[in-house]
Formats: sequence, structure tokens, C-alpha cells
Amino acid sequence: MPVLRSIRERFAVERPLDGVRVAACLHVTAETANFVAALAEGGASVALCAANPLSTQDEVAAALVRRGVEVRAEHGEGPEAVAAHVAALAAAAPQVTIDDGADLLAALHVDGPPADVVGGIEETTTGLVRIRRLDAAGRLAYPVLAVNEAVSERAFNDRHGTGQSALDGVLRATNLLLAGHTLVVVGYGWAGKGIADRARGAGAAVIVCEVDPMRALEARMDGFEVMPALEAAARGDLFITVTGSRSVLRSEHFARMKDGAVLANAGHFDVEIDLDELRAAARDDPEQVRPLVERYDLDDGRSLHLLARGRVVNLAAAEGHPAAVMDVSFALQALCVEELVRRAGELAPGVHPVPDAIDREVARLKLAALGVEIDALTPAQEEYLDVWRGRQAAP
Amino acid sequence: MPVLRSIRERFAVERPLDGVRVAACLHVTAETANFVAALAEGGASVALCAANPLSTQDEVAAALVRRGVEVRAEHGEGPEAVAAHVAALAAAAPQVTIDDGADLLAALHVDGPPADVVGGIEETTTGLVRIRRLDAAGRLAYPVLAVNEAVSERAFNDRHGTGQSALDGVLRATNLLLAGHTLVVVGYGWAGKGIADRARGAGAAVIVCEVDPMRALEARMDGFEVMPALEAAARGDLFITVTGSRSVLRSEHFARMKDGAVLANAGHFDVEIDLDELRAAARDDPEQVRPLVERYDLDDGRSLHLLARGRVVNLAAAEGHPAAVMDVSFALQALCVEELVRRAGELAPGVHPVPDAIDREVARLKLAALGVEIDALTPAQEEYLDVWRGRQAAP
Amino acid sequence: MPVLRSIRERFAVERPLDGVRVAACLHVTAETANFVAALAEGGASVALCAANPLSTQDEVAAALVRRGVEVRAEHGEGPEAVAAHVAALAAAAPQVTIDDGADLLAALHVDGPPADVVGGIEETTTGLVRIRRLDAAGRLAYPVLAVNEAVSERAFNDRHGTGQSALDGVLRATNLLLAGHTLVVVGYGWAGKGIADRARGAGAAVIVCEVDPMRALEARMDGFEVMPALEAAARGDLFITVTGSRSVLRSEHFARMKDGAVLANAGHFDVEIDLDELRAAARDDPEQVRPLVERYDLDDGRSLHLLARGRVVNLAAAEGHPAAVMDVSFALQALCVEELVRRAGELAPGVHPVPDAIDREVARLKLAALGVEIDALTPAQEEYLDVWRGRQAAP
Amino acid sequence: MPVLRSIRERFAVERPLDGVRVAACLHVTAETANFVAALAEGGASVALCAANPLSTQDEVAAALVRRGVEVRAEHGEGPEAVAAHVAALAAAAPQVTIDDGADLLAALHVDGPPADVVGGIEETTTGLVRIRRLDAAGRLAYPVLAVNEAVSERAFNDRHGTGQSALDGVLRATNLLLAGHTLVVVGYGWAGKGIADRARGAGAAVIVCEVDPMRALEARMDGFEVMPALEAAARGDLFITVTGSRSVLRSEHFARMKDGAVLANAGHFDVEIDLDELRAAARDDPEQVRPLVERYDLDDGRSLHLLARGRVVNLAAAEGHPAAVMDVSFALQALCVEELVRRAGELAPGVHPVPDAIDREVARLKLAALGVEIDALTPAQEEYLDVWRGRQAAP
Repeated sequence: MPVLRSIRERFAVERPLDGVRVAACLHVTAETANFVAALAEGGASVALCAANPLSTQDEVAAALVRRGVEVRAEHGEGPEAVAAHVAALAAAAPQVTIDDGADLLAALHVDGPPADVVGGIEETTTGLVRIRRLDAAGRLAYPVLAVNEAVSERAFNDRHGTGQSALDGVLRATNLLLAGHTLVVVGYGWAGKGIADRARGAGAAVIVCEVDPMRALEARMDGFEVMPALEAAARGDLFITVTGSRSVLRSEHFARMKDGAVLANAGHFDVEIDLDELRAAARDDPEQVRPLVERYDLDDGRSLHLLARGRVVNLAAAEGHPAAVMDVSFALQALCVEELVRRAGELAPGVHPVPDAIDREVARLKLAALGVEIDALTPAQEEYLDVWRGRQAAP
Repeated sequence: MPVLRSIRERFAVERPLDGVRVAACLHVTAETANFVAALAEGGASVALCAANPLSTQDEVAAALVRRGVEVRAEHGEGPEAVAAHVAALAAAAPQVTIDDGADLLAALHVDGPPADVVGGIEETTTGLVRIRRLDAAGRLAYPVLAVNEAVSERAFNDRHGTGQSALDGVLRATNLLLAGHTLVVVGYGWAGKGIADRARGAGAAVIVCEVDPMRALEARMDGFEVMPALEAAARGDLFITVTGSRSVLRSEHFARMKDGAVLANAGHFDVEIDLDELRAAARDDPEQVRPLVERYDLDDGRSLHLLARGRVVNLAAAEGHPAAVMDVSFALQALCVEELVRRAGELAPGVHPVPDAIDREVARLKLAALGVEIDALTPAQEEYLDVWRGRQAAP
Repeated sequence: MPVLRSIRERFAVERPLDGVRVAACLHVTAETANFVAALAEGGASVALCAANPLSTQDEVAAALVRRGVEVRAEHGEGPEAVAAHVAALAAAAPQVTIDDGADLLAALHVDGPPADVVGGIEETTTGLVRIRRLDAAGRLAYPVLAVNEAVSERAFNDRHGTGQSALDGVLRATNLLLAGHTLVVVGYGWAGKGIADRARGAGAAVIVCEVDPMRALEARMDGFEVMPALEAAARGDLFITVTGSRSVLRSEHFARMKDGAVLANAGHFDVEIDLDELRAAARDDPEQVRPLVERYDLDDGRSLHLLARGRVVNLAAAEGHPAAVMDVSFALQALCVEELVRRAGELAPGVHPVPDAIDREVARLKLAALGVEIDALTPAQEEYLDVWRGRQAAP
Repeated sequence: MPVLRSIRERFAVERPLDGVRVAACLHVTAETANFVAALAEGGASVALCAANPLSTQDEVAAALVRRGVEVRAEHGEGPEAVAAHVAALAAAAPQVTIDDGADLLAALHVDGPPADVVGGIEETTTGLVRIRRLDAAGRLAYPVLAVNEAVSERAFNDRHGTGQSALDGVLRATNLLLAGHTLVVVGYGWAGKGIADRARGAGAAVIVCEVDPMRALEARMDGFEVMPALEAAARGDLFITVTGSRSVLRSEHFARMKDGAVLANAGHFDVEIDLDELRAAARDDPEQVRPLVERYDLDDGRSLHLLARGRVVNLAAAEGHPAAVMDVSFALQALCVEELVRRAGELAPGVHPVPDAIDREVARLKLAALGVEIDALTPAQEEYLDVWRGRQAAP
């Protein structure tokens, strides 16, 4: 993770978080440890608990403890223990919160508005939904940076991360040949765009389904066929849903699919392919034909193959985001924590976008990590653009 | 222009501009005539003068007059005549202004804030610079929609329009084979991205130069080589500048280029390739080797080929935007005029972005024109997303 | 034309054609002059007449005469004059013939088998058909190298030359936006493949029609949709025929096309689009709507647009092959002439393929012209491959 | 495997192999079982032994025995047992041999030329080398069809099969992000072309290294950078060798590579990356950092990552060819066996190419399996092309 490393090295010198109390509720993994270590090198005293006890790596927790981080997490512990850890971190009056689902932030708001918190960051859609409701109810007490919505996060996580790993998951699960087959991508957000591009590069014919006219038009102008899902259902050999919505493939689509069609989901949850309707359409319980492939035999003799029980295929069948993607994500979070501390008191309570300057700094560091150099504007160009952009006052 | 036609047909029925006085200062061409006709069908009384007397097509002007439009434009007329026409339109107290360089808007502000204007639209970068300076000086009297900055305008005009027509211009000027050659694209905005994609599809090896780290990283993640222009100078067979900046190719770059390299500009003005420095580097006056190709012989025996004297190659050597691009642009403008009238009094003076809903409506109409159907959310999906997007109030 | 130039420079030193009488019947153009000059530098005495008097450039002819070449060609001269020139060249007992339609070769066989000819080259499909019939009749008196069928000729001429220039011709004729539109390519030989690739790169959705299952499967595995032309007829916005066959688009296809569809041919002749059936389907004579675009109005209200009257669109509406393509073609021909002279008496009468070694030499010179270096096998690798390729005798 | 299934269904009706004794030495796997079953349905009596005892699936062997096939293979048995099985099959006087390394054919030639054999097929490069040496020594007694060299075999196995599965293997082994990284493909045969295309589609920058100028030029005209491996060594993040040669990456390349570079081989054997020189360049024994990734630490502090110990990465780290590829391969073999029987006595001893008609028939069946329909020539087109192709005799 060279981008995060370069930040960590700067933090070690500049100590921008000196003495700041940071509380983080995250997956306790090796990648997280690097992030926490960067914050600690920046001077923060960090306390960490687990966003999900099943992902906790105990040896990572132990190593962090040895480095002076307060860690309250044990692999597989029960919900009461987890809740107690969150409460303990909240009780210690952190100045910055780092959340992966808004649990810490919620705990801090239980007994009225918390004091002393300069800000928080949140990196999941779910968490932002919770935080925005709290804000809508007039109860959010401090500013939160929506890391999840930063441009570089979306491009890396969704387009490059999911774009590659969703197809990777499909290949690992099925060993299907993409060339010559038709892929239907349902949803043309960043992830759908990434999947469609890569599949075309692999020789698949790609059809895109969308509900948003701007995205549908973009897909069409990118050279893909665009049609309603009901029409695409009869054309696809492989379907991947990436909508964030539910039941986007359902009984009416199953009824039209080719014998042998493969169904995978790379969206948020296992609700994009309607499993109840799939089970209802099948003659029997599905048969597992490969470790992550279940075959549903329908009454008319056709069979459909469901991957990973409709769970997110890039996590369930592949390894999720490559390290290069995690690197950008944690780099962004580290800079966001620095920003909150630097601008303490400036930002109003509410959900704020990650400042452009941070996106640009992450991009700059990532280019450096890739060994890519770019140009800088000359003074004459700066001056020319100042005029053009209207920065100068009118006379 | 099927998108504009569908709007015109609706306007003829709904008459959303009934009785509204619209003044427009545009290029008086066949495409503009379609736009003006749509406004007139919508009930507006339209007066038109010329943004540039050299582009005025007199037969178009005559035809518009026959349809009841007040046209003040003659091909090739002098600057005093043009200014008088603008002043006359301003004097007639329009309610909506349509500008292509802010001339009408400026004329209306000469004698203090104009009354009665509900809003204006502006479709050039230059015009927006002027208007924003007026606003910065506290003198802008009405709201202006920045058509030029709408998402669909950028995608169509820059990525698809310039992306195709810049290479079209290069091929018409040179009949160069793209396959096997190296194209250096300086600037990776929408237009640069469009040019790079198309050139790669044509078999060129593509190098991207940028000053913006976000764009540079995007180019690199899209699979292009990214490097400083000074390094790329030695690698390119063809260079296209699309930066909006000046002197992006200059003597230090000329000094490193291969013998026979071709230089073209598809940015704003003829300042992107530094012509003074190119002339200074050459032994003699350039020799015209094809109608739009000048060969500059340098002292060391190398020659460089400049296309269209550095002017915008898609206009100078090809035909500018295809009709499908103009269609989207004028459709957007027609809906913006409707929006200004519908929301008269709601918008504060200042430069406003085109509302998302208008972008989406243009996309919807364009898809219909292409014969592309898309899905709609089911009620269950609407409900699911409402929860997710946090639209519902917290309890 | 750097590849031909490098051959010419070697010829000037090595003089491989010293004293050889070469007769050539070609288009008398600037590119041909370079080729003829290379032969002359190699020591040949060259006589040249015109394959087509309409393409003769008199100033080129004059310049060649000044260099000692015998030229019998005048722009626009009549068929008797042309035939007389061919006969004159044949009467002078050439040792090598260079043909662009087999006219010279035919003239040499009129009075029985010619003496002294060591061989000929032919660069058109039409010419090879004539020559093969002569051979089938047992009358071909000398070996002919089928330049037209060499691998590098096919790749450059068809895939890269026609692939680029056919779309170039369409854009010059129509200024149509490729992105978002559907292109139907009828024929997936080298040229069809080139067109399909480039159009996809430009944002078009591409459908391929074929009669050959190997090519159809290749297109499908390359990610294109493949379907019968009758089905594609209803889907296309633009059709390009590149089959070498006739009437591939005919009344049954016209009957299903969308209003406004554009028809272009990039195959051999103007018979690929059935013009008789198109005229019969139209209400009236076509109307010319742009210089190379005719609109045919059909009885049911639809209109179809025919480009360049169905003639080869890359020649009629663009400039045919880029210089880089001509360069490879003439380089190949120069090396073929050298080969015939070097191996005089070795080859039996008949049509022979261009030897692999010549294709490889042209590739080597072209890479050098592009400044591209490649690896060579190490001795250890040579030895390893010798074993693998079974070059060594079995014990 | 729908293509093989359609052949099997026809074989069951037509019984083209009725009573023919077929001996096959193949990998005894589920896919092979389908092939053998098709031959049996065609009327052949089939005896099967194992090309490699490690790939033998005993349950597949048992199932074949139940269907009446003579199977002599047991998982993991020793070389003597394997040799005895081969000898037993040879002793039974087969009429057709099917080989995967020429073992059966060799056994049949031990005691002088075998009688009764109408022909054989061979599907490996290694086997063909052995057979051609036998032929060169004047000892090959029957005709052999070189399945391995058929056009559809090359396209499917190498371009589509290896093209996809080599990258699949790299991702499974490393979870590396392709976008933004530079892939060096050493070798631009069918497999190299497949890998390069797919990697470009995934956002990688791709560099090609070659020793063959025709292939190098093709890569360059396809838009890839082409350079000597020594130069590419310093640029790549990932290297994949697909040359069929040895030591294509060796100490001089290792010396220039970036820290962290990843090395994989998708060619024939584990000799493409020189493992001796890699070990010699390393400070210590390599450390295994993921199941199929070994890190070699060099003296200067850089590390290189070797995948699957240099063995073929698509087999070692992924699952080899997708079923769609195996389907085409076995379909081709089934048709070749039919051809040998049908033309018994017609073909001379020697290695023969697979007839075009078989390639075309496989393509036709594969298109049908994909549900793709194509056009047929009309009688008028047949006639036109007859003239063009010179099929008709000259008068």
C-alpha cells in the first residue's frame, strides 16, 4: 500500500494528529492495521473496536496492542461484547470518529450531543443513511466527511475494484469463457461501467439495463446495447446485477432466460436477484454443482445457475478489492482525519463531501506510487487560466 | 434533429412560452433556425441577431422572417451594424435572453439593471467568464443558466462531438494512418478522453499529458501511458492539444519532436500550440504541402507539420459537431428557456447550473430518438431506495 | 514512404536489377513514380504505361521521363492509345512484367508464349482471376507472384487501409456521429474486421453479417453481434458492405431498414448494394442532399441515404489508402521484382504466393521505419526451438 | 459441451465409425469421457489409456467401463504400469490412434510399420515433433492429422482459452489490480494476442516483446507498444511469457525490473522464465507469500514475485481451458476421426493439416450452439463469386 505508506511517512515527520484522541470502529484486518498505524505515527492516540467480529484477525489485534493501540476486539465474539466495546470507545470522549456503519457515531449521540468531537468520517452507504437521518432530525452534533462518496473512492472502489473483482469472482466460480457469450449488466453506475468495459475487452457481447436515462444514454454512447431487462433476459448467457436496488432480476426475467444462464450479484446486498422468486420458480431445492454454483431446475426443463447464493460475488467468490484499491481508500481516510483536525471548529454539523483538494492529493500520491510524472502549469499558463476562469475581479 | 423536434412538437401543443419576448444573439444557421422555430411554436415572440456576421446564412434569415421571427442579421456586415442590432434587441425589453458570448446580456446591463428579464442562457465559456465577472462586481441583474456546463452538453459536445471530429479533421487534413503511430493527447478532459478512446480504437498507441492529477490518474487507470509533455514530445507522431490553456506545445517540445511530426489543436483557441515559437524555430516561412498542412523546416533538418494554422482542427479541417450533437445542445437550450419562464421570479440573479431534471429529460428524449427503451423502477424498488437514500424522515 | 526508400537505397548500392528490362502497367501517380525510381536505381531499365488514363498525372510522367524512364501515358487519352502503349511495351520483350489488371501479361500472350520473361507480378484480384484462367487453360508461360494475396498486403491494405479509410469516407460524406449509432458491417474479412474494430472504438454498436461460418464465429468471439442481414437490416443506422460479392443489400433489406439509414460500400465494386433494386424501391429519382449523399424516398415514407452512388466509399469520399499503406504495398512489389530476377528460371509457370521471407523483410523494414526495435533469438533459444520444430534429423 | 453433443447425436444416428477399433491415450477426465462416448455412439469400439496417471479420475474410468469402453488407467500408477497399458492398446491392432504426446503411435512403430491403421490424430506440439522426426526418418507408417494446428483449435485454445485463463490465473494467484499497471507480454502468437487484448480491456497498459517481425508489426499496428524485452524489463509491473521458447526472461532482465514485479508463464513449459538464473540472482531461498506466489529477494533490495514456480499459470493457478474451449477441441477431434475412417486409404503417410471443411463444420456447429444464425449465399452470388474466383474454366 504505497500511497498510505507515503502519508504515514509524512505523518511521522509532521505529527499533524499530535495528542488527538481517535476512535475507530472498523474491520480489524491487516489493511486496517496499516491505516491505524499511520494515524498513530501522526501522533493520535487510537482506540479500535470491530465493525464485525467475524472479520477480526486476532493476530492483527495483538500486533496493534503491542504498538500501543487500544484494541477491543476478539474474533467471533457475541453482539453484547461488540456493543460493549463500542460503548467503551464512545465513553472515552474521542475527538475524531471513524466509522464503518455509523455505530460509534450513534453510540456518541445516545445521551444527547457529544462534546469535544471535531468530526467523523464514514465509509459506508449504510452508515451515511443513518447519519443523514439523524441530521434530518436535527440531532447530528458534529461534521462528518462522506468518504464513501469521494470521487477517487468511487472510481477506485467501484469502477476499478468491483469492475475487476466481479468478473474475477464469476470466473473463479464458473470457469466460464467470456468471449462469444452475452453478458447483461444491470446497472451502469461506476461498477457497472467497469464490469461492462472489462467484459467487452474479454470478448463478451455486453448489454446494459438501466432505469436512469442519463446512465442509459451514457452506456449507449459508449457503444453498448441498452434495453429493458425483460428483453435482455432472453439474450444473456451471464447476468450481473450492480444496482443497489432490489429484485432487479425476478420471476418475469427468470421465465425468459436461456437454459443454463448464470446469475451473479455485485451490488450491495443479496436482494438484487430475488431469491424467493427464484426458489418459487424451481422444481426442487437447488443442486450445488460447483462450490459456489447452485443449479435451479425450472418446471419447463431449463436450469439457471446462481452464484454465491446471490451474495456479492466479488467478495464471496473472489477476494474483494485488490490492495491497490484499499490503498487509495485508506489514504483518503487518513487525509480526511487530518483535515478534520486541521479545520477543527470550521465545519458545521452535517454530512460534508470530501474536499477536492484531498481527492487531488490522493491522486498525486497514487501517481507517484505508480512512477508516473505529470506536467505543471507554467506561470504564463496560470495567468492565462486565471483570466479565463474569471478569478480576477472585474474592473 | 429528432430530440429538438420532439420538444418542438410538445411546445406546439402546450405553448409554454406563450407571449414571452425572447431575444437571441446566435450564429444564424440552419440548426439555429430549428431552435428558434421551436421557441416560436412554443408561443414566444423571438427576435434574433447574429453572434458573428461571418456565419450568417442570409437564406436562413429570410426564411425565419417569413415565419414571423424578427431577424436583424446580414452576412458579412460590419461591427457597427452588428452592435446596432444587439442594441435594438436589448431596447425591445426582452424577457429571456439567449447568448453566445454574453453580448445581449452586456447590452442590457449598460444603462443599469434591466427590468422585466426573467432570465438568460449562455452557451460559451467566454460568455460565462464575462457574466461571472459582472456578477462578482455585484451588477448582474438576473439569473443565467450555464448551458455550456450541463452534463449532457459536456458529454455530447466534448467527448462525442470533439472526440470524433478532431480525429476526423486530422484525417481530412493529412490522410495519415492512425494504426501503428503514436498519438500524444495533451489534456484529458472530456474532449481529450474522447480523442484518446477513438484513437486507441483505430490502432494508435496513445500517450496522455496532463497537469491535473485526478485526470492524469484517470487516464492511467484507463490504460493510457501518462508522462510529461517534454518526454512525450520525443515519442509522438501526432500531437493534439485540448487543454483550454496556452503554449502547451512550445519551443522546448518542438526541439525534441521526431522529423515529420504532425501538430493539431482541438482546444479553444489557436494559442495552445505556440505559433510564435514555432515560427522562430523554423528556418523559413512554412510551406503549404496540403491545403491545411504547413511544413515548418527546422535548422537541424527536421520538419514539423502544423494543421489549420493551429486553429481548432475539428472546425477548420472537418465540419465541427455532427447534427446529433447540435440536436442535444439546442434541445437543452429550449428546455432551459422553458424552465426560466416556468420558474420566473424564483431564481436569484447569478449563474446557475442547468437543473438535473433537464439533463435527464434531454437524455430521455435522446434515447427515444435512438429507439432505445429502458426500465422503470417498480413501486417496491422505489420504496426500497427511498429508505436507502434517506428520503424518509427519521422518526 | 520510408520503407520503399530504404529498399531504394539498398538497390542503389547493390544493383540487383542491373540491365533487367522491366515493363510496368500501373496508375501513373506520384507514389508509383517512387516505386519505378527504386527499380531504376536497382539497375533496371523501366518502361511504364498507364493502367487507367484518368489517373495519369502528366507532370509525374514528365518527371520520370527526365530520369530516363520510358513513359507512354497521357492523362485522359482514349482506349486505342492506351492499348497501343501496352502493345508497345509488350513488343519490347520485357523480362519482368508488373501489372495492375493483367493487361501487359495478356498482351504478351496474344501471339503464343513469350520468350525471355523471367516472371511477373500482379496486384489486383481482377488481374489474378484473368491470369489463373489463362493458367487453367494451360497457356500461362511464366511465373507470377500474387502480390495482392501477401499477408502484409492484406493486413495493411484491407485491415488498416480500408478499415480506416472506409469510416473516413463515411464521415466526410455525412458528418454522422458514430457514437450511439448501430453500424452493420456486411463481411468480416480483413477489411470488415478493420472497420468493425474502429467503429467500436468510436462508440458505435456493431453488428456483423457473414456467410462464412469461420469468419462469423471469429466476429462473435471478438464480441460483436452476428446475425443474418435481414435481421440486421432493421437494426442498423449505417451499413457498410465489404464482401466482394454482389447484391448483399437488396430490396428485402431496404424494405426493413429504419428511416434515414445510410448505405455505403467499401468492397470491390458498386454491385454490393443492389442499385437497380434501390431505384425500383424509390418513389422518384434520388435527391442529392450533400455532395456524395443521395436520398432515396420510398413509398412508405421512409428515406434511405446512399453514399457515393454505391462506389467504393474510401476512394470516392475519402482519399483511399494512406501513404503508410502504399509504402508497404510498393515495398512488397519491389522485393518481388528482385526475387523474380534472383530466382530466374527456378519458378515454374503459374501463380505463386509471395514468399514468407519477403513478408518478413517488409515487416522488418516497416518496424525500422516506425523506430521499433525487437528482440532476436539467443543461440540457446535457436537450439531449443530447432529441437522443438523438429528441424534436426531423427537419429 | 454442446458442440460435441451435437456431433454425438449425429454419430448415434449415422454410426460413421461402426466396428472401427479406436485406441486413445488421453487424460482420463470427465471431458475426455464425453469425447470417448461420442466415438462409441458412432459405433467405434474404444480402448483408452492414460496420457498422464496424475490426471486420471478413477470415477470417470469406472463410468466408462460401465459403458463398455476398455479403460486401462488408474490414478497415480507408476511408469511401468502406464507403459504396459500403452503396449496393450498397441497390441490390439487399433485402426485409429488418438494421441496426446505420440505415445501410442510410437508404441505401434516399435516393431516395424503397423498394419491396418487407417490414421491417427495428435493434439500436442510435443507429439507432432516426435511424429515429424519419425516421418523425416522415413519410418512413419500412416497419416496423422495435426489437430493441434487447426485454425479453430488455435483460435479457441490459444487466443480465447489461454487469453482468458492466463490472466485468470494471475488474478487468482495475486489479486493484483490490472488497471493502472503495465503488463509486458513476451510473445505475440495467438495466446499473446489474447492476453494483450484482455489486459487492455481491463485497464492495463500493455507492452509486447517479440522476435518475429511479422508478429511484432501486427502488435504495433494493433496499438501496443513494442520494444526489446531488455527495455520492457524496466517498465513492467507484470510479465507473462507465452513464447514456446526458453529463458526469455533471464538474469539481464531480472537486473532491470522494478521492485515488486510479478513474473508468470503461460507458454509451454517452465523454462520460459529462467529459474536457475532467478535463484542465482536471489539472496536466499524464495519466501512463499501467497499459496502460488514466491518472493525472491535480490541483493540490491528489490524483490520479484514468481507465480506457480514458473509453471503454466493458467493450469497451475486457474483451471485451464473453460469447457467452451474443450468442447471445440474435442469436436474437432471427433470429426477428424470420422474423416480418417471415411477416407481410409486415401491419405499418404505423413502429417496432414486438418481439412478446412472440418474447421468450417466445427465453426458452424459452435455458432448453432451459441444460437447465432448467419446468411447463406444466394444463387446469384454463388455465380458471381464463381466467376471471380476463377472456378469456371477459361473458354
